[in-house]
Amino acid sequence: MNSSDTLARLDAVIESRKPAQGGDPEKSYVARLFSKGPDSFLKKIGEEATEVVMAAKDLEHAAQDPALQKAFIGEMADLWFHSMIALSHFGLSTQEVLQELARREGLSGLDEKALRKAIERSK
Amino acid sequence: MNSSDTLARLDAVIESRKPAQGGDPEKSYVARLFSKGPDSFLKKIGEEATEVVMAAKDLEHAAQDPALQKAFIGEMADLWFHSMIALSHFGLSTQEVLQELARREGLSGLDEKALRKAIERSK
Amino acid sequence: MNSSDTLARLDAVIESRKPAQGGDPEKSYVARLFSKGPDSFLKKIGEEATEVVMAAKDLEHAAQDPALQKAFIGEMADLWFHSMIALSHFGLSTQEVLQELARREGLSGLDEKALRKAIERSK
Amino acid sequence: MNSSDTLARLDAVIESRKPAQGGDPEKSYVARLFSKGPDSFLKKIGEEATEVVMAAKDLEHAAQDPALQKAFIGEMADLWFHSMIALSHFGLSTQEVLQELARREGLSGLDEKALRKAIERSK
Repeated sequence: MNSSDTLARLDAVIESRKPAQGGDPEKSYVARLFSKGPDSFLKKIGEEATEVVMAAKDLEHAAQDPALQKAFIGEMADLWFHSMIALSHFGLSTQEVLQELARREGLSGLDEKALRKAIERSK
Repeated sequence: MNSSDTLARLDAVIESRKPAQGGDPEKSYVARLFSKGPDSFLKKIGEEATEVVMAAKDLEHAAQDPALQKAFIGEMADLWFHSMIALSHFGLSTQEVLQELARREGLSGLDEKALRKAIERSK
Repeated sequence: MNSSDTLARLDAVIESRKPAQGGDPEKSYVARLFSKGPDSFLKKIGEEATEVVMAAKDLEHAAQDPALQKAFIGEMADLWFHSMIALSHFGLSTQEVLQELARREGLSGLDEKALRKAIERSK
Repeated sequence: MNSSDTLARLDAVIESRKPAQGGDPEKSYVARLFSKGPDSFLKKIGEEATEVVMAAKDLEHAAQDPALQKAFIGEMADLWFHSMIALSHFGLSTQEVLQELARREGLSGLDEKALRKAIERSK
């Protein structure tokens, strides 16, 4: 099992939870979010991002603590997971995000873009 | 090239930008963030999460618009990219996040955990 | 009744909900947050900020809709309210925030600081 | 000078920075945000909320440190300030937020609403 499979399989699981695919809001958390509509999972992206930051600050103040590392990883997984639900809602998937990351990934390319944005922002 | 490679290669690029690895803050955006310290990229996670949500709302109001889809994907890539910088800073990588997602991924397991959290939260 | 009174009274209400002041987590939402500890209301600041942004995007796409204006105001009130809980937890209040805003408020002073930050950021 | 005056005066300053009111994007940070459009200041709300949370976590790990208290207050002021820009953009002001807070403020009313929301969320 490789990591790509993980994301692709998770994309498929999320897809299968759409009410139109038979997802049951009474039994599935993902189906429940889909049935509530986009604000329900977009809100979670903001919330989970904040939890990632809080877990990171705890880790910063007690570096290498395994329990805090685990908590940080868990929050990051929550953030990515809800990101995937949003992607799925809009008919997209992790594949597009990975392609975009790959596109930027040429060593120089990656930083070139980020630096360009930073420079533009500073104007 | 599969997606797993994309994340693993990007992890490696980010790792190589650490000042201790020779990353140059004058030339590299990532090296610059590392040299500024964790608040500089943690702050970006909050900012990029907000930009993901804004792009999603634009997409919601004009579904299927290719330019808005592209913008949404771009913001998501920014969010994941800065997530990876934070992981790297704490000696972690996307592998741990993918493992955590895989661990939860059993169809029932995935929702079971989320539902359990939702139920706990509601207590 | 003026607005200053509103914030001061609300500060006092929040203060009175601290468990040490007799706040009952079973009866009061604020007391419950205090008893859960800071992460519980810090997380809400991130969540409510995201909800403010979502409500603003809805309003942007249907300007002047009274129901959406009301929703936007409601989210902003939630954001400020949870901000006040955090201030109270740290032994601070809206008074310090208002003083800081007043300090910056000289017309030139206000923008001077913001511009200075923007310029520093762009370096 | 009371606090209400602070918010009302700041609302007026912000209003005067609108390009339509003569605000100059070259000289004023607020005018620059208005001229860039809503995403520029909505994004800041997410960013400043994250900075509030980071400053709070630092304060949590070193309670009562005056420099960290000051930093926390400063971030909160930034969050409220950019909130006010967003309100102004939509033809609203702090008055509406304060009225909404006052409306909820009856001791029981305040918690009643929050508890109702918490209960609804938990369903």
